[in-house]
Amino acid sequence: MLSREDNELLAHVGPGTTMGDVFRQYWLPLLLASELPERDGPPLRVRALGEDLVAFRDSNGEVGLLAQNCPHRGASLFFGRNEECGLRCVYHGWKFDVHGDCVDMPNEPPESNFKDKVHQPAYPCRERNGLIWAYMGPLSDPPDLPALEWNLVPESQRYMSKRYEECNWAQALEGGIDSSHSSFLHSRLNVNEIQGEQRNGMLVKERDKHPRFEVVDTDYGVLVAARRTPDEANYYWRITQFLMPAYTMLPPYGQDPMSGHFWLPIDDQTTMAWTITWHPTRPLTEPELDNMRQGWGLHVGEDMLGMPDPRLPGSEWRPIATRENDYMIDRARQQKEVFSGLPWIAMQDQALQESMGHVYDRTNEHLGVADTGIIQVRRRWLQAAKSLRHQGVTPAGAMNPESYRVRAAAVILPRDAVWVEAAAEHLTARDGVHIPSA
Amino acid sequence: MLSREDNELLAHVGPGTTMGDVFRQYWLPLLLASELPERDGPPLRVRALGEDLVAFRDSNGEVGLLAQNCPHRGASLFFGRNEECGLRCVYHGWKFDVHGDCVDMPNEPPESNFKDKVHQPAYPCRERNGLIWAYMGPLSDPPDLPALEWNLVPESQRYMSKRYEECNWAQALEGGIDSSHSSFLHSRLNVNEIQGEQRNGMLVKERDKHPRFEVVDTDYGVLVAARRTPDEANYYWRITQFLMPAYTMLPPYGQDPMSGHFWLPIDDQTTMAWTITWHPTRPLTEPELDNMRQGWGLHVGEDMLGMPDPRLPGSEWRPIATRENDYMIDRARQQKEVFSGLPWIAMQDQALQESMGHVYDRTNEHLGVADTGIIQVRRRWLQAAKSLRHQGVTPAGAMNPESYRVRAAAVILPRDAVWVEAAAEHLTARDGVHIPSA
Amino acid sequence: MLSREDNELLAHVGPGTTMGDVFRQYWLPLLLASELPERDGPPLRVRALGEDLVAFRDSNGEVGLLAQNCPHRGASLFFGRNEECGLRCVYHGWKFDVHGDCVDMPNEPPESNFKDKVHQPAYPCRERNGLIWAYMGPLSDPPDLPALEWNLVPESQRYMSKRYEECNWAQALEGGIDSSHSSFLHSRLNVNEIQGEQRNGMLVKERDKHPRFEVVDTDYGVLVAARRTPDEANYYWRITQFLMPAYTMLPPYGQDPMSGHFWLPIDDQTTMAWTITWHPTRPLTEPELDNMRQGWGLHVGEDMLGMPDPRLPGSEWRPIATRENDYMIDRARQQKEVFSGLPWIAMQDQALQESMGHVYDRTNEHLGVADTGIIQVRRRWLQAAKSLRHQGVTPAGAMNPESYRVRAAAVILPRDAVWVEAAAEHLTARDGVHIPSA
Repeated sequence: MLSREDNELLAHVGPGTTMGDVFRQYWLPLLLASELPERDGPPLRVRALGEDLVAFRDSNGEVGLLAQNCPHRGASLFFGRNEECGLRCVYHGWKFDVHGDCVDMPNEPPESNFKDKVHQPAYPCRERNGLIWAYMGPLSDPPDLPALEWNLVPESQRYMSKRYEECNWAQALEGGIDSSHSSFLHSRLNVNEIQGEQRNGMLVKERDKHPRFEVVDTDYGVLVAARRTPDEANYYWRITQFLMPAYTMLPPYGQDPMSGHFWLPIDDQTTMAWTITWHPTRPLTEPELDNMRQGWGLHVGEDMLGMPDPRLPGSEWRPIATRENDYMIDRARQQKEVFSGLPWIAMQDQALQESMGHVYDRTNEHLGVADTGIIQVRRRWLQAAKSLRHQGVTPAGAMNPESYRVRAAAVILPRDAVWVEAAAEHLTARDGVHIPSA
Repeated sequence: MLSREDNELLAHVGPGTTMGDVFRQYWLPLLLASELPERDGPPLRVRALGEDLVAFRDSNGEVGLLAQNCPHRGASLFFGRNEECGLRCVYHGWKFDVHGDCVDMPNEPPESNFKDKVHQPAYPCRERNGLIWAYMGPLSDPPDLPALEWNLVPESQRYMSKRYEECNWAQALEGGIDSSHSSFLHSRLNVNEIQGEQRNGMLVKERDKHPRFEVVDTDYGVLVAARRTPDEANYYWRITQFLMPAYTMLPPYGQDPMSGHFWLPIDDQTTMAWTITWHPTRPLTEPELDNMRQGWGLHVGEDMLGMPDPRLPGSEWRPIATRENDYMIDRARQQKEVFSGLPWIAMQDQALQESMGHVYDRTNEHLGVADTGIIQVRRRWLQAAKSLRHQGVTPAGAMNPESYRVRAAAVILPRDAVWVEAAAEHLTARDGVHIPSA
Repeated sequence: MLSREDNELLAHVGPGTTMGDVFRQYWLPLLLASELPERDGPPLRVRALGEDLVAFRDSNGEVGLLAQNCPHRGASLFFGRNEECGLRCVYHGWKFDVHGDCVDMPNEPPESNFKDKVHQPAYPCRERNGLIWAYMGPLSDPPDLPALEWNLVPESQRYMSKRYEECNWAQALEGGIDSSHSSFLHSRLNVNEIQGEQRNGMLVKERDKHPRFEVVDTDYGVLVAARRTPDEANYYWRITQFLMPAYTMLPPYGQDPMSGHFWLPIDDQTTMAWTITWHPTRPLTEPELDNMRQGWGLHVGEDMLGMPDPRLPGSEWRPIATRENDYMIDRARQQKEVFSGLPWIAMQDQALQESMGHVYDRTNEHLGVADTGIIQVRRRWLQAAKSLRHQGVTPAGAMNPESYRVRAAAVILPRDAVWVEAAAEHLTARDGVHIPSA
């Protein structure tokens, strides 16, 4: 439960807002490189942190990210021509390069130096292993990209998808560190159907649905450990990572690949939920990839996207299960097969998160011990936001990209072990090293 | 004509509003029993008095009506599982019974007593003869259901329909006590086509389109009498009933069944208009039922509903004639056949009421003597609202369910008769007694 | 660049607003006569200057323009019956003539004089050569219609179309006096394809894309002259007319017909953009008409209209290229054929004007010398608005309809000529006289 003030503080991410300023301290995953496949190809409308932007790949392959409306008379640069190293507005021909400099102003007299006075807001972008990152913050020389393992392994070892979610980023993310919901929302009524690496862990989760939680602050975020009891000697720990400002990593099962999310605020009421699955030491297999492309596991299937609307940038990633169709709930399946009756895990999350309202009102909630992780993450957010706003303190991890070399993990430990120490190796991302989870 | 303040006061029905508090003093017709047909069946989204609710029928057949969003972290209980005597949220498994008590909280430790501290807002429901009533008010022990004849006769003697109307409840209801409009809006250009019981009364209405009105306050509302002149010796009185907070009853013709409405505010801008036709002493005939199912008379036809939208609870009762299609007006028929050119009586009402705007602005209207009934009913509403708000006075009828045993009627009386006395028998609902109207 | 206050002042046109009052000083082109083709035919919903109105043609052929909602109880007169010299509300039968007088009130007692007290707001309309004009202002005896040549020539010499544009009127109009954009937005990549009368002027425009501008105030508005350099001895002047409150006229090419616009504010966020093409001395040819009907030149093609919505009066004139479909941009054509990639000239304008936002925010723009005309026209608007508001000064041209006998023109003049004098003959509309442009 939050005060109305703190709830509002979390929700708003536009220019000049307190939480918006926190996001602007970090590099943000913005686009798949494949969304801007070719040099001088069509520009793309992008909305992030409440700002309307246009992205394009220039003749050198560099990605530009400009404020969407031309500084001249406000026409949208989305209709612009992506020409030799610059985006040219089709209204009067003004042309801007990836730095936002006006490099041509053909409707003004040639002797005019007006173009040197005009600058379009532009955000630096960097590209790594198939992902385009943007920095929307104040530094002219921003730090390196965060050293997230899933963005460092070769592309063959990683799969990414994203979905357009119609609710505030924070309530969406909270689903990603809410370890207790998966025993319910994502459960099947016949647990005996579960096979493979997931089988042991899932069975423990089915048997012990009310884990105890412990949280530990880290340099870059929070560790959230859920403790279950598999037998009399041991504890089964599932340790989730939260990384500032909006990453989550979920503990894998056994030798399975790892997964995580990034929750990009499109604006206060819309989120781009990125899902990433990767393996530290081997390429993903064809069956694994097929599963993800079809929407099994945490990903939205490629065939499950629809209903793009140019007025809603990013909506080409909007899943077909929506508020308008009750997320395709099937009450018969709910009775006999699937606890929620909702199809696909990612859609189950999205349905429930959106059902909390466009911006969830936390002034009336009732948090229990199962929400320990959420409580702690909110504390970090609010603390970071207020320290930045009032004391100018750079938030955790923003200037320390190397601190992001971490993993989530599940481990079985003797009851007297200190999990944060005993699992330290599991929680570290080291090149070429893979310690299976329990 | 009302002041802006009074107009606003009438319009708003949400929690804490003055007129909303009036509605919360009464039992309200909420759902057809057939909308929750089976025990442990799918729950239903309901919106009433501006509150988002979920209704379900539990294993004992009792109907629960809960606030829609789970008290834990706000997920919608609409997606919930209707299990053994309770609705279980699919997010984390919390389960609530029809009283709003949390009866299971499986994601919290078993020794926790947290669930005893959590209570979901729940409204008592009662069911009678095919109708589910809800009480959204402050009393822990609310009075009996109002003894409305149409809810006491066997179901074979009654037919009910409802329609989703996209305007404020009060302007919709005003159409139900506005006796003069039927000579215009609902008239046919060739009155000779009218047959049966309606013939005599309709002919008088056609001949005398400008009735005089008299109003009399009652214990439960207002009597609105429209006087027309059929010949030199007599008056023809059509007496409409208004019952607090939002019932209307229309005078029947001859031996015909009787009809009335209840206007349930879904929110400030949307109304569920209930229509009820009943006969005090005999089952409705198959031709009568067929007519109503097909949309003749005051009912919306079963085939005339369409366009449900889960974002608009109740919209499964939205008629196919809407603002978006000009209510299917047919200008050729308007010239030759039907005064309004609009199809179906119920749709004629709905079209005109919606055309007044989502919330009708009464600061600019011009009321004549034909609006005497409307003026008086508004007075009752405003008086009831202000007395409740400022002096805590329970509004008329709320604690006196027996006072609702009334009927509307049409009578021909000698000119010197006092209609309110002479028609007293006609206006009383007595078991097994039916006095035909004129 | 405008202050926020001035930007708001320009945007708002509803009753009681400053700029709205300016518009209400003038006759406004409202409807094509063909939209109300027959006496006693169906009425038409109209929205203008933020007011909801209903237009009808009465039994005498006169056009009435009434406030849309009945003064009785607010029902829409759009559903009304257009009967013998009046529009009758279908709710209770009140009937109004073109002057807004209530001429029948059949639901009130015959002896009542209530109808003499009720008056519906009504605006005088006049019809000339296929166009219906409305005067929404304060004078009981408004001046004559403006003597615009395009409304005085026989209908065979003129073609009119209109399109529903989803943005504020002022930013739309600014596109009509923005001579520099046509070298870009409307240009083809292969200028050699251009044939006919346009060829010479277009080639100069292609070669000299950065004209110098000069502006001159007139009795009725502003002359905006764009100077280009075709050779060493001469200047090529293209002279655009702006006429208060919202007319523009574009210079023609050679013997071609002339064209202009009127930008009618439907409300603050929507504009009806009228386009008129006319020839002073000869009927338009079949090929010319065919071209316009098909959407070549400045007109929207007859087949390019779609998506009417009764909730948006005028939307039957909404083009099929919209925000929702990215205005049908074709990136392949953008690369090789058409500078903008957008189909049809009128749609190119509409796309860019709408892309500036529903109400363009001028506080952040960067105007150059190419925007000299726009700057001056804004000055006239603001000056007119403030003088009317604060000193009661009637704005330019409002009381002087004869001053509207003007044309736009393109001329080639020796460099030392004073264009405003040298082109005076070209800029005057004289009956039966046509001086070709350069």
